[in-house]
Amino acid sequence: MGFTVRFRMMKSEEVPIDVPREQFLAFDAQDPLAEVRERFVLADELIYLDGNSLGALPKAVAGRLAHTVEQEWGVRLVRSWNDPWIDLWRSAGGKIARLIGARGEDVAVADSVSVNLFKLLASGLDLRPNRRVVLIDDSDFPTDRYVADGLCNLLGDRVTLRRAKGDLRRALDDDVAIVLSSHASYLTGALADMRAVTHAVHEAGALMLWDLSHTAGVVDIDLSGCDVDFAVGCGYKYLSGGPGAPSFLYVAPRLQDEARTPLQGWLGHEDIFAFADHYRPAPGVERFQCGTWPVLSLSALDEALDVFEALDMAAIRAKSQALSARFLELIEPLIDRHGITVTTPIEPQDRGSQISLSHPDGYAVIRALIERGVIGDFRMPDIMRFGFAPLYVRFVDVWDAAAALTDVLDSGSYRAERFRARTKVT
Amino acid sequence: MGFTVRFRMMKSEEVPIDVPREQFLAFDAQDPLAEVRERFVLADELIYLDGNSLGALPKAVAGRLAHTVEQEWGVRLVRSWNDPWIDLWRSAGGKIARLIGARGEDVAVADSVSVNLFKLLASGLDLRPNRRVVLIDDSDFPTDRYVADGLCNLLGDRVTLRRAKGDLRRALDDDVAIVLSSHASYLTGALADMRAVTHAVHEAGALMLWDLSHTAGVVDIDLSGCDVDFAVGCGYKYLSGGPGAPSFLYVAPRLQDEARTPLQGWLGHEDIFAFADHYRPAPGVERFQCGTWPVLSLSALDEALDVFEALDMAAIRAKSQALSARFLELIEPLIDRHGITVTTPIEPQDRGSQISLSHPDGYAVIRALIERGVIGDFRMPDIMRFGFAPLYVRFVDVWDAAAALTDVLDSGSYRAERFRARTKVT
Repeated sequence: MGFTVRFRMMKSEEVPIDVPREQFLAFDAQDPLAEVRERFVLADELIYLDGNSLGALPKAVAGRLAHTVEQEWGVRLVRSWNDPWIDLWRSAGGKIARLIGARGEDVAVADSVSVNLFKLLASGLDLRPNRRVVLIDDSDFPTDRYVADGLCNLLGDRVTLRRAKGDLRRALDDDVAIVLSSHASYLTGALADMRAVTHAVHEAGALMLWDLSHTAGVVDIDLSGCDVDFAVGCGYKYLSGGPGAPSFLYVAPRLQDEARTPLQGWLGHEDIFAFADHYRPAPGVERFQCGTWPVLSLSALDEALDVFEALDMAAIRAKSQALSARFLELIEPLIDRHGITVTTPIEPQDRGSQISLSHPDGYAVIRALIERGVIGDFRMPDIMRFGFAPLYVRFVDVWDAAAALTDVLDSGSYRAERFRARTKVT
Repeated sequence: MGFTVRFRMMKSEEVPIDVPREQFLAFDAQDPLAEVRERFVLADELIYLDGNSLGALPKAVAGRLAHTVEQEWGVRLVRSWNDPWIDLWRSAGGKIARLIGARGEDVAVADSVSVNLFKLLASGLDLRPNRRVVLIDDSDFPTDRYVADGLCNLLGDRVTLRRAKGDLRRALDDDVAIVLSSHASYLTGALADMRAVTHAVHEAGALMLWDLSHTAGVVDIDLSGCDVDFAVGCGYKYLSGGPGAPSFLYVAPRLQDEARTPLQGWLGHEDIFAFADHYRPAPGVERFQCGTWPVLSLSALDEALDVFEALDMAAIRAKSQALSARFLELIEPLIDRHGITVTTPIEPQDRGSQISLSHPDGYAVIRALIERGVIGDFRMPDIMRFGFAPLYVRFVDVWDAAAALTDVLDSGSYRAERFRARTKVT
């Protein structure tokens, strides 16, 4: 069932890069976060650089989930709704809040990123009734664009979707009600300037919605300090909440009393068990709950978040930047030699926690790396993505990955992978 | 952590009802479904009559979930998206399809009931562009009403919500685009006539959306034979998929090519990994997927559904009707003696699988029963609900529950419970 790990330590005469591996082992020895890796299930020989797609499994999750299933569901049955299920989203939301610069009570865990984008875009339009444009960054992850498009289609003539190519700020005007942008691009890893963009959007009288899917848990975010209006984010990438873990959403305290969601589910009601005739939104972010949440998936996320408990986001960010910077240094000789384009910004402060390299045979190269136990992923049209989750990626993994990439490219061994079926890793 | 089970076998001189318990043990001995209970985790002394709120835990789920967590997530990591996660909703949908009279490919498992109601109501309006009314049954579960109301508010003047009190059919006219009704009422258990209502709705030129939350897995439903347009249902009641298990939805084959959801998420796209510029809906019900599904919760549901594999829905329905009929027989003497109103239809073919009794002290009575290990639930304003999940409720449970109810009422012991805080069981 597991990976067939074909990556072996290379003998010194085969080592394809100049920098000694020992130097990276020494970085690990000095890394204040090194021992956090012990809290994850990861085979020692696996080089996992896809935590930006699916975070690794925290060891504590299996036990927590067994307890949720066998005791909470199996034995206590429906009574577990009173405790602990009814407040599970608050628990997880509170843990995420600290990582993104928010108060615990301003974050709800609910539904998927796509569904939460719909709720918040509609809220933004509702809060700016005299404006008719939803402005999005054209390079966002497709679901952001599709959801915005679906909402605008539903609302017909009342609303228009505007897609900004390049700087969002140049597309602002008096018609814009709400702006949606990824904090870091899923494709290039480029990091937006949250403070400056939010400020410009406010200057134009619009509201700002950030998609934190590629930054929550890895970039030190300050939603409150940047005066952000809305945010959504992903539970299963750097937060390691498990495949398809519920999403989170943030609403600025100043907007919570007036923001409304069109997805009026019973669990967003002011008094859930009154079974009231009319919908009355709960106070605060609870109104953005909708249907019954997936307790098993939510329990896993809640447990996974405890890994962050004693950790400082600044330290996580520092290690993330160091990992990606070291990787860039090591693969620099490949750029000219193999016609690679680095599509991620070179300055560490301008990127999230991934390095994207474009190469005409990117898909085949990624396949060849996976065969060797180095897990990155591929995104259309020609992008190889390498994500550096600082809670469990070691500096020596960076070295091993760079060495493998160098060897795969120099040897041309990837060419055998060219014609295989396209993979579907996310 | 478990229940404090205080229900003990009563000595014969204390037995408060005339019918001998042995007779119900004999029913169990003849029950062709009796051994299915062995596939669930249930303490022998627990009388669980709340499977209409949260289905009991199938024994196989714990192992399946451990595998999903430890192997699929922990070891195979992102590669598990290729297999088995990408098709997990199809697997679960196919298993549900057989229980509701649909083809496997016409059922998707996705999101929550509330979110799916939103998608399908919006689809119905889109398919009937010249009509402006969403018609709902006013006695439906609150979320159905709230969701319909939220959608209509979002669409503004274009659409009106009409709430039918009494027979829906009398509220039909040329303005109605889509009709939403529960197949069985969450409150009274009354079963609607799916065939007749759907026919009447079609005669009026409208589309019919059934909420099967209280019938899927317990009533033999024939969506295809009744020519139903749309349906949604709940994964965590009679299907035993676990707390907050994903919902399912059905779209008639004849509508699948034209039905559109406004919740356009990336996983409903025709070619998920093309990351295409524009949204193009996937063929069939797949287009009703939205964001990334909660794999852990979905795995549990998929496993739970295997309990139904060799079972015949007609046999399940027959046992369900027998259980609720026997319960009514046993508690009949209480009706006059304690001023109880049976709010569920008396004829078995007119109800789902629950018996609802109204009593001014209903809340206190339910509390007193729970203290004795008989788990029913309470719904505002004064309804005691007893659900009979035929896969694991025994005839002797019916007897024990009726005896306990008789004793609690006759002894007046429930009065001590009157002033306790309102419970929040769902």
